[in-house]
Amino acid sequence: MNSIDPIVMKRRKFWGWGYEGEGVSDAELLDLGSSIRDRFGLKLQDLEAAPTIDEIELRESRVKSKASLEHLLSADKWSRAEHTLGKNLGDFVRGLERKYDNPPDLVAFPEDEGDVVDILDWAEEEGLAVIPFGGGSSVAQGIEPIVPDTFRGVISLDLRKLSRVLEIDRESRSARIQGGVLGPHMEDQLRPHGYSMRFFLQAFEFSSLGGWIATRAAGHFATGFTQIDDYVQSMRVVTPTGVMSSRRLPCDGAGVSDNRMFIGSEGTMGVITEAWMRLQDRPSFRASMSVPFSKFEAGVGAIRALSQSGLYPSNCRLLDPVESLLSGAGDGDDTILIVAFESADHDVTPWMNRALEICREFGGRVESDKPADSSQGAVGRTGAGGRWRNFFVKGPYYKEGFARMGILRETFETACTWSAFPELHARVVEAATKAVKKECGEGAVACRFTHVYPDGPAPYYTVIGSARRGGEVEQWAAIKAAASEAVLEAGGTITHHHAVGRFHRPWYDQQRSDVFAAALTGAKRAVDPGLIMNPGVLVDA
Amino acid sequence: MNSIDPIVMKRRKFWGWGYEGEGVSDAELLDLGSSIRDRFGLKLQDLEAAPTIDEIELRESRVKSKASLEHLLSADKWSRAEHTLGKNLGDFVRGLERKYDNPPDLVAFPEDEGDVVDILDWAEEEGLAVIPFGGGSSVAQGIEPIVPDTFRGVISLDLRKLSRVLEIDRESRSARIQGGVLGPHMEDQLRPHGYSMRFFLQAFEFSSLGGWIATRAAGHFATGFTQIDDYVQSMRVVTPTGVMSSRRLPCDGAGVSDNRMFIGSEGTMGVITEAWMRLQDRPSFRASMSVPFSKFEAGVGAIRALSQSGLYPSNCRLLDPVESLLSGAGDGDDTILIVAFESADHDVTPWMNRALEICREFGGRVESDKPADSSQGAVGRTGAGGRWRNFFVKGPYYKEGFARMGILRETFETACTWSAFPELHARVVEAATKAVKKECGEGAVACRFTHVYPDGPAPYYTVIGSARRGGEVEQWAAIKAAASEAVLEAGGTITHHHAVGRFHRPWYDQQRSDVFAAALTGAKRAVDPGLIMNPGVLVDA
Repeated sequence: MNSIDPIVMKRRKFWGWGYEGEGVSDAELLDLGSSIRDRFGLKLQDLEAAPTIDEIELRESRVKSKASLEHLLSADKWSRAEHTLGKNLGDFVRGLERKYDNPPDLVAFPEDEGDVVDILDWAEEEGLAVIPFGGGSSVAQGIEPIVPDTFRGVISLDLRKLSRVLEIDRESRSARIQGGVLGPHMEDQLRPHGYSMRFFLQAFEFSSLGGWIATRAAGHFATGFTQIDDYVQSMRVVTPTGVMSSRRLPCDGAGVSDNRMFIGSEGTMGVITEAWMRLQDRPSFRASMSVPFSKFEAGVGAIRALSQSGLYPSNCRLLDPVESLLSGAGDGDDTILIVAFESADHDVTPWMNRALEICREFGGRVESDKPADSSQGAVGRTGAGGRWRNFFVKGPYYKEGFARMGILRETFETACTWSAFPELHARVVEAATKAVKKECGEGAVACRFTHVYPDGPAPYYTVIGSARRGGEVEQWAAIKAAASEAVLEAGGTITHHHAVGRFHRPWYDQQRSDVFAAALTGAKRAVDPGLIMNPGVLVDA
Repeated sequence: MNSIDPIVMKRRKFWGWGYEGEGVSDAELLDLGSSIRDRFGLKLQDLEAAPTIDEIELRESRVKSKASLEHLLSADKWSRAEHTLGKNLGDFVRGLERKYDNPPDLVAFPEDEGDVVDILDWAEEEGLAVIPFGGGSSVAQGIEPIVPDTFRGVISLDLRKLSRVLEIDRESRSARIQGGVLGPHMEDQLRPHGYSMRFFLQAFEFSSLGGWIATRAAGHFATGFTQIDDYVQSMRVVTPTGVMSSRRLPCDGAGVSDNRMFIGSEGTMGVITEAWMRLQDRPSFRASMSVPFSKFEAGVGAIRALSQSGLYPSNCRLLDPVESLLSGAGDGDDTILIVAFESADHDVTPWMNRALEICREFGGRVESDKPADSSQGAVGRTGAGGRWRNFFVKGPYYKEGFARMGILRETFETACTWSAFPELHARVVEAATKAVKKECGEGAVACRFTHVYPDGPAPYYTVIGSARRGGEVEQWAAIKAAASEAVLEAGGTITHHHAVGRFHRPWYDQQRSDVFAAALTGAKRAVDPGLIMNPGVLVDA
């Protein structure tokens, strides 16, 4: 049974989030549902049952394994279903509708880099498309096997067996890690050595190192080095024309960056089999505070000043009143700024004190007069910050629950300059609210900042409304289109960290320069002349 | 007279560093020379005269201006000579030998982006190669017009007239700046607004924003965001197939980075006409200290700990005893660690105190018991740090002087992981010292760290020896080859911030992956199908 995760010996759900039999109970979901209904005046529907594998029909596999690769390939129904859909609202809804229209013909589970080479070689010979698959957490249809008819079939290439931390270089505080490792298992292997990658994105449990690199994920750190890009020291990428390997360097100035040409390539250039990654010492000093602001604009001013202060807080988020209410962090009156520092080297009190001073200057209500100290906030797991954190961690489980109970809840995110933000925010909220009203009747649009930079924030929007059974995909498509148009017109990007995939392609094509598109296509064609790698993503198939 | 700098109304030297009639006096040079002779036992030779324009013979220009572009093009002897050689030892020596073998046929001085488009179009039609030229400070023959015979001629495209700060966005702390602006003139335009780019690389006076971006220059900040790459918010690049323009974004996660595909392209993909750049507030809090260590290894340990501390000092350099002696910062016994913090937002005393604690832990002799305060060190312009800084700033002027007085003095630099450093350093010093002995008799090899990262340093080596008149190019080639081989074998890069150009090409080709080379070539061919842009650099012509 190839679809069993090798480490935990558990099977991942083919629909929804997590391992079979795990997640949030129906009772908890109903509780959450009624609380949300009360707060936002939504209609709730009966909790729909998750699909069982027997209810799913998959089209026949069109591809027969090559004998020498048979041990790596699976036509198993569960595996194929598990690799059919990602984790956005449309994926969950289609799963609930038992619509698994684009299954891969086979799922490959390579055990080492040589296997990846062999599989790509065979795919090229046979005219098969290959879709690299890490944790499968894409919310942008990045792993959905929709490929042109010119291919004889499509393989989902699941890296879960490349899951080891292979080497640790203590002096250089870095580790050589295989691309298929999921967040928790990677941290389990780093912890005994005193290290952590501290890359706790929301999909942490079911996303892989290779997936983070391929999609330019943004992680735990809200300021400074936010993107996985900054933590890649070197990579190995199997392309159809050979292995790209880069030198282990702390920084390089020799020509165009080799790593950066493959980071963010979303499976279109090759398969990331391993990378040397920069690690963090496990922090021993921490301080965390939640600061309420009566006005959203004042919170924005404070967080902008923090972003430009050179203090580099590890956490620095802003929740608007709706987001606070939605997550249970607040009562819906205040904007809440969460700021935290962490260090393995030094007491962070002076940092926090200055950050709180900045908050006060902008009208933030810093509750305690005494200087924040490192024991305060107990890792930010109490108070408003703690409540928000709990909601954040359980988010992916709630998401499948919302789909089951007829709540339309989905997110989109962007980044823009500080000067562009006020208009972008106004236009996005207006467009999304109008679309929600039209599509759902009641509903709400919430905003938070997930990351901030000296030159701008990364705003993250949550939309919530009543779902129309059977119409959710269209409802969301209409809201998303309205919001995306506003984002692009106001100068934002279609994604700060959710990747392009197939879902964001129309807006991605609008926002990028044709000359860059030509350069990227040229690079891709050079390493993947058969265009077999994740066709249709980033570059025309 | 196109070769007059439009702002300062001065003419740049066609040989050496700086404006005509400016620089270091012969008396100062002789003084420096005899001090170096005494310290390193070198032979000094008579101060050779800089070439005059009448002594230079240039081959006839093979290209006639197109009438509609005549006002932008110059076949003027001074201009052509000025655009023939860069600023490395071989360039200075060849200039002293009056060898200007590869002059451009014409020098273009576009006045806006449209002019750049017109010039590239015309060059493509006429079969001419185009070499983008910023400040001309390349030490890697990146702007030397050596192109294949298949071209009918070659144009040096000098951006000096694109020298304005066009727009400032205060809220987003960024500015739209033309690519041809030189460091000082850019700062002059930012200063009245309270901003600075704080990108004070050694070539600051005669290097341009576009040049920094094209060559991935590393600047003032010794830790954290060191490279110009990190300060680019968006770009406009004129390629032969159109203008690449990217969105103004503080961070983007949509596919492969568009900016990063053009940053470091060294003129091979197009001409950077302007960029939105992230700025810094002018610092008001500073602290700077020089800490001597009796052992180099102890200094390395301390600076490694600093690099991993999360303190992010703005300056964090290590000078080995030879470097200290060479620059006058020390007496040649101690290794000196220079550490500095700066901020526009907060007193940096807590940062400095912790940094000095780290230095003490590694045996550094922190001279003062009282905590460093922000007034101390007066911007680091006094003491050992100040002496070193003075030598650093005058470096490019001294460099032409050394060539004139028969001192072979040149540098090379790299980056590697902390774990690779001890062996890299031992091998490099051994190979370079052996080569210096063989080529020069007496001499020395000095090392400093210009930048440090959590996973490794950027070591910078200075070689000094007695020159053999007429044989300097071969002497240096032999030393450079020996050192470069050691660098590559020990896991370093051929350049951390000096770029590849034509000079580093053999080693660059060794260190990069063939698959990446193919991808880069694919990208280049897509935007420059005639391969007219800086042929031979990065990609085969």
